[in-house]
Amino acid sequence: MDLKSSPFVPNDNIPKGSFTFAEFHGSGTGLFFSVKKVLFYEKSKFQEIQIVETEEYGKMLILDGAVQTTERDEFIYHEMLVHVPMFSHPEPKNILVIGGGDGGCVREIFKHKSVEKVTMVEIDKMVVDSAMKFLPSISSELGHPKLDLRIEDAVKFVRRSSLSFDVIIVDSTDPVGFASPLTTESFFRSSKRILKENGIYAAQTQGPFFESKSMGIISKKIRKIFPRTSFYLANTPTYPGGMWSFALSCKNSKSDFKIHPRILKCKDLKYYSNEIHYASFALPPYVKRILGEK
Amino acid sequence: MDLKSSPFVPNDNIPKGSFTFAEFHGSGTGLFFSVKKVLFYEKSKFQEIQIVETEEYGKMLILDGAVQTTERDEFIYHEMLVHVPMFSHPEPKNILVIGGGDGGCVREIFKHKSVEKVTMVEIDKMVVDSAMKFLPSISSELGHPKLDLRIEDAVKFVRRSSLSFDVIIVDSTDPVGFASPLTTESFFRSSKRILKENGIYAAQTQGPFFESKSMGIISKKIRKIFPRTSFYLANTPTYPGGMWSFALSCKNSKSDFKIHPRILKCKDLKYYSNEIHYASFALPPYVKRILGEK
Repeated sequence: MDLKSSPFVPNDNIPKGSFTFAEFHGSGTGLFFSVKKVLFYEKSKFQEIQIVETEEYGKMLILDGAVQTTERDEFIYHEMLVHVPMFSHPEPKNILVIGGGDGGCVREIFKHKSVEKVTMVEIDKMVVDSAMKFLPSISSELGHPKLDLRIEDAVKFVRRSSLSFDVIIVDSTDPVGFASPLTTESFFRSSKRILKENGIYAAQTQGPFFESKSMGIISKKIRKIFPRTSFYLANTPTYPGGMWSFALSCKNSKSDFKIHPRILKCKDLKYYSNEIHYASFALPPYVKRILGEK
Repeated sequence: MDLKSSPFVPNDNIPKGSFTFAEFHGSGTGLFFSVKKVLFYEKSKFQEIQIVETEEYGKMLILDGAVQTTERDEFIYHEMLVHVPMFSHPEPKNILVIGGGDGGCVREIFKHKSVEKVTMVEIDKMVVDSAMKFLPSISSELGHPKLDLRIEDAVKFVRRSSLSFDVIIVDSTDPVGFASPLTTESFFRSSKRILKENGIYAAQTQGPFFESKSMGIISKKIRKIFPRTSFYLANTPTYPGGMWSFALSCKNSKSDFKIHPRILKCKDLKYYSNEIHYASFALPPYVKRILGEK
């Protein structure tokens, strides 16, 4: 595993003093990133948190060795996780974000003028604090007056909450360890309970190329609970396989997933458009098979 | 650049005796592949050719240090480069493939029953020979009786040829070195000349995340020559950024890019479907800007 021993790697490209961070996808491939500086490196009660300055992607947040977000490509994941459910609702006012400690989802949500309140439930305060310090372009709206930021376990929150929401967005880490309860039938049932009648639920659901098994399991469970669920895709350069999937579910089977056009406060989205919204639901046959469709 | 010196890499996952091949995207990131065995490694007159057995992607063809195709993900690139132009033509009979030495394009083309003749012009015989020996699932149709395989310079071929084609598909390496003449106005003009009146031209045109400059230049040139060009996208796990672009052009401005539905000899495509065909033309706003659209 020493790249120097490979005759194929142009080591001269790497500036002296830097080192390389690598994330494995499957067991024998992955992405590497030349790192100029480690900005933050601590273990919280839940996970190992790193924020590093990379050569190509700007600052990068890594949780338990898995790349979560980078300054250069985060716009794709955050725009697609947020604007697809938000535009699928006629007038989203009360939004619940589960996870999303870096603040990217909250930033995108506040671009919708109808929003009256965002409740964000993140288990790990250290992720929020380090993102606010080192990732200002992503965490920019974490101080918004309409944000109710709660540091607590989302599983308990959705089980007990007496609030109700127009849109729930789950921006979680991989469904292992402390994040695994976020993909159980019990969690989907609780989430459905705290949605309003025309409420919309959205979540990241892993990538089809390396996590097909996990996607298949999540898909079965979520479809048991919500009367209608569709999956959509987006290109994610720093996630395994370069393509990620998302689930869009509704509480009421009469809901459709039509776009409710509106003008955002910030008009210059870079990945999302209404055209991309519709197109992202077209699934390649191999992805349909993973999801048990046709 | 020594991964061992990084505290973040779980080296224990890599079987002993294997080594790692890494391809840089930009200057400080890229993909790495654990390699079990080098099957072929020679320098031809044109380039360095390697075929290796990888841990996760099966056999992989590498030209001048750039991953060209792998057994595991080649279906995406080849299906999308071939079936989008083929389904855009009412009855493709005579097809020209430029490059494509591994045989993946030819294999997909012969799934269309209307095909009477495929002419393939590949500059490097060693790519064809090594693919036929080591990549049988990709090169499977390179011995097809309806294939006219010519080992010669495609630039000269298109300039001089008195043949005419329904569909031209350019499956080239990156537009540097000996492949750079394949993205010039002069090449596009010659290609247009040898297309029939309702002919369709398709080519790979690099990825928007790391080759935006190159894409922008190609787009300007191709649009100067062909009366209509649209770009489409597909997820490509082993190419930089995980997403690749393709140009679809027509000789006659009256041509539309509608799908002409038909049943293939092999019905079980894994990535392409008519639904994906249409959806792949939806471009994120940042890609439109690269292409000078809106």
